[in-house]
Amino acid sequence: MAESTILIKDAKLVFTGETKSVLIKDEIIAEIDDVISEENVDKVIDAKGMILSPGFVNTHTHLSMSLFRGLADDYDLDSWLNDYIWPIEANLNENYCYIGALLAAVELIKSGTTTFSDMYFYMEDVARAIDEAGIRGVLSYGMIDFADAEKRENEFRENISLYENCNGMSDGKIKVFFGPHSPYTASKELLERVRQEANKYNTGIHIHVGETQKEVDDLVESTGMRPFEYLESLGLLGPDVVAAHAVWLSDNEIDIIKKYDVKISHNPCSNMKLASGISPVAKLLENGICVSLGTDGASSNNNLDLLEEMKFASLLQKVDTLNPLVLPACEVLKMATINGAKALGLEDEIGSIEVGKKADLILLDTNSVNMTPDSSDLCSNVVYSANGSNVDTTICNGKILMENKKLTTLDEEEIYKKARIAIKELKEMN
Amino acid sequence: MAESTILIKDAKLVFTGETKSVLIKDEIIAEIDDVISEENVDKVIDAKGMILSPGFVNTHTHLSMSLFRGLADDYDLDSWLNDYIWPIEANLNENYCYIGALLAAVELIKSGTTTFSDMYFYMEDVARAIDEAGIRGVLSYGMIDFADAEKRENEFRENISLYENCNGMSDGKIKVFFGPHSPYTASKELLERVRQEANKYNTGIHIHVGETQKEVDDLVESTGMRPFEYLESLGLLGPDVVAAHAVWLSDNEIDIIKKYDVKISHNPCSNMKLASGISPVAKLLENGICVSLGTDGASSNNNLDLLEEMKFASLLQKVDTLNPLVLPACEVLKMATINGAKALGLEDEIGSIEVGKKADLILLDTNSVNMTPDSSDLCSNVVYSANGSNVDTTICNGKILMENKKLTTLDEEEIYKKARIAIKELKEMN
Ligand SMILES: [Zn+2]
Ligand SMILES: [Zn+2]
Repeated sequence: MAESTILIKDAKLVFTGETKSVLIKDEIIAEIDDVISEENVDKVIDAKGMILSPGFVNTHTHLSMSLFRGLADDYDLDSWLNDYIWPIEANLNENYCYIGALLAAVELIKSGTTTFSDMYFYMEDVARAIDEAGIRGVLSYGMIDFADAEKRENEFRENISLYENCNGMSDGKIKVFFGPHSPYTASKELLERVRQEANKYNTGIHIHVGETQKEVDDLVESTGMRPFEYLESLGLLGPDVVAAHAVWLSDNEIDIIKKYDVKISHNPCSNMKLASGISPVAKLLENGICVSLGTDGASSNNNLDLLEEMKFASLLQKVDTLNPLVLPACEVLKMATINGAKALGLEDEIGSIEVGKKADLILLDTNSVNMTPDSSDLCSNVVYSANGSNVDTTICNGKILMENKKLTTLDEEEIYKKARIAIKELKEMN
Repeated sequence: MAESTILIKDAKLVFTGETKSVLIKDEIIAEIDDVISEENVDKVIDAKGMILSPGFVNTHTHLSMSLFRGLADDYDLDSWLNDYIWPIEANLNENYCYIGALLAAVELIKSGTTTFSDMYFYMEDVARAIDEAGIRGVLSYGMIDFADAEKRENEFRENISLYENCNGMSDGKIKVFFGPHSPYTASKELLERVRQEANKYNTGIHIHVGETQKEVDDLVESTGMRPFEYLESLGLLGPDVVAAHAVWLSDNEIDIIKKYDVKISHNPCSNMKLASGISPVAKLLENGICVSLGTDGASSNNNLDLLEEMKFASLLQKVDTLNPLVLPACEVLKMATINGAKALGLEDEIGSIEVGKKADLILLDTNSVNMTPDSSDLCSNVVYSANGSNVDTTICNGKILMENKKLTTLDEEEIYKKARIAIKELKEMN
């Protein structure tokens, strides 16, 4: 196959403010320079005045839950799960999860996210949707056994077959992790075996840890240990573990996270909306811990817009610590890019604009009111003023997925129609 | 002049979910019904599938500061004011403030805000911009005397001449309040006289109160009283007072606010970004106090998007109280509409969709990814998932200011150009 080349001309690099051109050859960033010849280039994007950023990395999602957007807001967590989410989840099937993932993919591409890490059910159908969409994803099956040995076997069969069928698919853009749901829904036996399987398959682990105070209290009561202490005692922790939420942390747990280089996925909107609590992110970052950002599912957010999530992350830490200097704009943008890449073990491939890395890049439009005037610090406008609608162009693995705010791989109108029908059918089943 | 009529056909009313048509005659909502004849109607807007909401009311802004968007983020308040904002404000003039207000007006219209309450300098030039834009505004001159009698005289001259020149202009859409900046920048004498002048001119008062802990501590040290206690002792308080921020409140101050029916303008993004603190809004609302929403200036936010501000308001209270039931979506939407109207003494004119009220209305597009599927509770999608870019149509006082996301009164490209030149010139002066 002949090489395919894209030249992004005269974009402003988000972290440095320099105006540069970027040449993409196939899926790789081949050259970054002041001027690059247009000769023999297949496609030229005039990015004059636009901001070039690494594509965003969303390290904790449940894509198919986008079908449940706004389904049951302003309830307490128990009622939300027991009366709304679990009954409707019981009716999910391959097709619904596929449509939900397509809907989520539209939102991710439109708001500049090129990589996500997902945990849910019917993950092969999520993989199918993501393959069509053209974005990069780490998939894990949400394993829950409630201490039932037979169910546990089934969960491992599911996650392992997901690995065997999907790891490496979509030109290597899809990877598979193990997804033990949490220390309170997965048994000791499940968690211990997850570490063995992750080592055997040489892949990572995606898990919810320490989201609510109740979860911590219950575990302390039953085991005498807090969640990260408990996971340490089971031998689960390591640099290949992405722990979502990590809201309620003792100093000892922060030491443990640091010691094992566990990666944290911070989900401020979800933690705020469900009133879970405030993760001590400023302290984690001070300790050199890798904190990335996640939106969680759309039903507890209620969108997948990492630009909004960045603003929430920064402002929440500032007010919580009463220190306006913590989580400055550029640091937050790194959480949403290179830290996300590190969390997923992809830092050699994505997360920054460097020659040799995969071309996962986005362009943000500056000729819109919330981006005017353009700040001398581009990160500031991106983090504090922008929202998803400022993303003009999304490129993943060297392929244009959106240009001039128009999708190239997915038919959004068609997907909206299918999503509306899907949720209508799901509601009618209950 | 012949009557001008607009028919909004088949919109979904945001609070009830009913599909209705709305007939506007001149500036008034004349009829709301299932079906309204198109005969003799000048303009028909097909709003099928769109959400109709009252235009948003932003009760605390400094419009012209939009020029300073992203100028100096991630500094502490002292350095931000002393090293960046005050030096550049010293160079402001009529023209810069006019351009800044135009830039802000573009943002307000595009994100669905039809009424704002502003405090700043060169307010007659702000009035000029607002008159061109066609939105509704309450203007006040930010009076600061630092106990200097001569400066005090000047400040009153400014605010009174603003009243005399601008109150009632723009078909009554522009009103003028008195704007004593705060208890720490305005003297006892200034604050006492403000009450007399407000009574004399039969108008309201817009003031910053209790934004930072330091401000409270300083006042307690110098007067033995906390801010609202001090303002009560001076006789300033009443139902015509809009107090912005109100972050640090004792129980006695909450009682005082309630007793005098003082209106609170809550500014969550600004309070979070500047690390000022968290206002006890859930408690204020429980006490039956009228809390509305403000964005503060773009330089401490950094946008004027009330849709985003609503999400911040709701989520911040939920996590601060650890109660997911506080500030549900519909209550927050009321804060941004009818409560704002009450704060500005305009509840008989605007803030809800009712026959006889002024037609300040917006349409939100639901055929976009973050609004799909459309929740059974429309408020939920609006508050938790939407952002300013979902606003399709903005109508103020019966006049269309934006349709299909295109402005009708302002030339945005031209305004962006002027704004960029203005901030460049302002920076070069320092
Ligand atoms: Zn989750
Ligand atoms: Zn202010």
